[in-house]
Amino acid sequence: MERADWIGAPEGLTRIDGTGVTAPHGFRAAGVAAGLKGEGLPDLGLLVSDRPAQSALVDTPTALPSAAVTYTRSLHAGSLRGVVVNSGCANAATGEQGIVDARAMGEAAAAAAGVPVGSLAVCSTGVIGERLPMKVIAAGIDAAAAALSPDGGPDFGEAIRTTDAFAKGGTFRLALASGEVTVGAAAKGAGMIRPDMATMLAYVTTDACVLPDDLLGLTRAAAAGGFNRISVDGQMSPSDTLLVLANGEGPPLEGEDLARFGDALRAICRYLAILMVKDGEGAEHAVRVVVDGALDADEAERVARAVGESALVRTAAYGRDANWGRVHQAVGQALAQAGGHVDFSLRFDGVLPDGAGIDEVMARPEYEMQVGLGRGDGRAELFASDLGHGYVSVNADYRT
Amino acid sequence: MERADWIGAPEGLTRIDGTGVTAPHGFRAAGVAAGLKGEGLPDLGLLVSDRPAQSALVDTPTALPSAAVTYTRSLHAGSLRGVVVNSGCANAATGEQGIVDARAMGEAAAAAAGVPVGSLAVCSTGVIGERLPMKVIAAGIDAAAAALSPDGGPDFGEAIRTTDAFAKGGTFRLALASGEVTVGAAAKGAGMIRPDMATMLAYVTTDACVLPDDLLGLTRAAAAGGFNRISVDGQMSPSDTLLVLANGEGPPLEGEDLARFGDALRAICRYLAILMVKDGEGAEHAVRVVVDGALDADEAERVARAVGESALVRTAAYGRDANWGRVHQAVGQALAQAGGHVDFSLRFDGVLPDGAGIDEVMARPEYEMQVGLGRGDGRAELFASDLGHGYVSVNADYRT
Repeated sequence: MERADWIGAPEGLTRIDGTGVTAPHGFRAAGVAAGLKGEGLPDLGLLVSDRPAQSALVDTPTALPSAAVTYTRSLHAGSLRGVVVNSGCANAATGEQGIVDARAMGEAAAAAAGVPVGSLAVCSTGVIGERLPMKVIAAGIDAAAAALSPDGGPDFGEAIRTTDAFAKGGTFRLALASGEVTVGAAAKGAGMIRPDMATMLAYVTTDACVLPDDLLGLTRAAAAGGFNRISVDGQMSPSDTLLVLANGEGPPLEGEDLARFGDALRAICRYLAILMVKDGEGAEHAVRVVVDGALDADEAERVARAVGESALVRTAAYGRDANWGRVHQAVGQALAQAGGHVDFSLRFDGVLPDGAGIDEVMARPEYEMQVGLGRGDGRAELFASDLGHGYVSVNADYRT
Repeated sequence: MERADWIGAPEGLTRIDGTGVTAPHGFRAAGVAAGLKGEGLPDLGLLVSDRPAQSALVDTPTALPSAAVTYTRSLHAGSLRGVVVNSGCANAATGEQGIVDARAMGEAAAAAAGVPVGSLAVCSTGVIGERLPMKVIAAGIDAAAAALSPDGGPDFGEAIRTTDAFAKGGTFRLALASGEVTVGAAAKGAGMIRPDMATMLAYVTTDACVLPDDLLGLTRAAAAGGFNRISVDGQMSPSDTLLVLANGEGPPLEGEDLARFGDALRAICRYLAILMVKDGEGAEHAVRVVVDGALDADEAERVARAVGESALVRTAAYGRDANWGRVHQAVGQALAQAGGHVDFSLRFDGVLPDGAGIDEVMARPEYEMQVGLGRGDGRAELFASDLGHGYVSVNADYRT
């Protein structure tokens, strides 16, 4: 990623070489090919903290969550030890049986990994409306448990991929006054650009010690500032899940260190989220829509979504066309009921739509679409992608 | 159109051969090639009632209306005599100068047509953000006024086309207890499937006599039941306008006849609206999304829009894939904050997604997507189109 300024990393946070979710001490993981996806592709992942951990979970707001999400919500969300996740089948829209299956999957994985029953979150991603093949899952769990390793992070990252063009994750070091902590991450998804299999899953591990309430608050803030700032096509998955596990011993972070850890968590989530926008068949640009001068933050958000999710704006971006009329139209629609004056302005990385160098800007893989409304102090941002032929091909041909 | 049942025509309404907006007695129209679009294409239309008429106007709710819409709103909306309309330039986002230009266009047309200044609505459709070429407009107005004719309806219909694949309109006869009335219509647009030039414009003329308040109420209801029931990509134009002109002499319609006239107006607007959905590069299917069993009408509407405007559902329709998981996902998203149980069901023209004959249904140019929620009595419908490669091509390549 070229635009490091988009991530907003706090001082002291650096990306280092490492094994991602198993880089912090005390985490083991594995990823195996259970046979859900076929072709020998890894499709079952297991991540476990050797010690009791603090955990925080943020999941999808959809009214029709997947069975895995429903089951995981029934657990004690603050003291999870890890997660078992499969790709290839979402176990969504599978009714009561789906929840029974999710529970069986979670309990089998806990037993195999030697952690208490009910201490593993369950995630499933893939086609909606099909039941989990439980024999395949059971065999995969046994294989994954046998393969659990402190070097298993990359295998875990591969197993959660569906149609992701590249694995997403990283290893990070954060220098705090009380010492250094390590943070690992693995994620999959590309917004909902890839239907049925496009669920966003993200796992963050750390050897920091953080109180449960603190961890939940910071995780929610990180999700809001990260994953909730991206939109590929405005679609919401039944399975979206962010799980943060902190297994550090010793005194919990507090004060300045806690705040800095929160900033780091948010930056890492933004990094993962922007990678999701950059992924996806046909997406050639990651566009940060920045709205300024709205009456308030809600209005700015509404405008940013209207612009960033507009099929007209996104196809223009694909065509590298600084088509300000379409942005103007989307703004007019977003403010239809708002009343008051609009002093519309638009720049792309600071360049006016008819300004010198605009063609070069529109060809950039990452640029900002800066929308001014001249109505107040409300600001919002949204990371969006363009809409090209690849999107149609993947989404029209998928499953056929 | 095969699905006549979608239109809901009242008894006594028949489509007949005729000249559209000039079919009712006392209307003249013309369409000429002024030179805005080039290639000798007709691009300026004039429609005038010889007699004083009652009129009703419904226009775009956008916060950033075009200059033509702003000017037309300043007129006395209940007693317009006609309209002057150009294609090729939307006169939108043109500031104060745009409004001056729209006024000059309307006043020149009124003078040329011999009707009072301020009695002609002004509509412009085309590229947003460019000024009207006033010399071209003035010459076109003179030519159109000279060509005004009781047979000019079809020429007018051609002049308002932008990228429409076919002209939309018709001539209708309605048998009422008090006698027969004639209704003519001309429309353009394909939702916002064709950006910048995709404005929806519709003109309906009749020799019925209708009181102004009645006409406005019926026109609003017809717009709500017609044009507001379609969505191509959820985009709102700055120029959308529906103008209904009734120039009948004699006693105004009342009671049963008035109600029947209203039903006819609504049916004609639905007919025009569905034609718009069927038009458009890449749209191969017109899909009527019917949502049943919502808690109330608002919830049903929200679900219908979420389904009908979902890029995932629409690309699946393009791929002729009865992908119920995507509809399920869109429903879950629409009901994210709603709470309560959802008993989801889905049929395509009565056939289950995995039912016999589903492939034949999905190949139909027109079919219904019937979504059940099992929560209450709320119902809604929305006419939507599929999303194919043609959409991307037109919208990415347009203007370049």
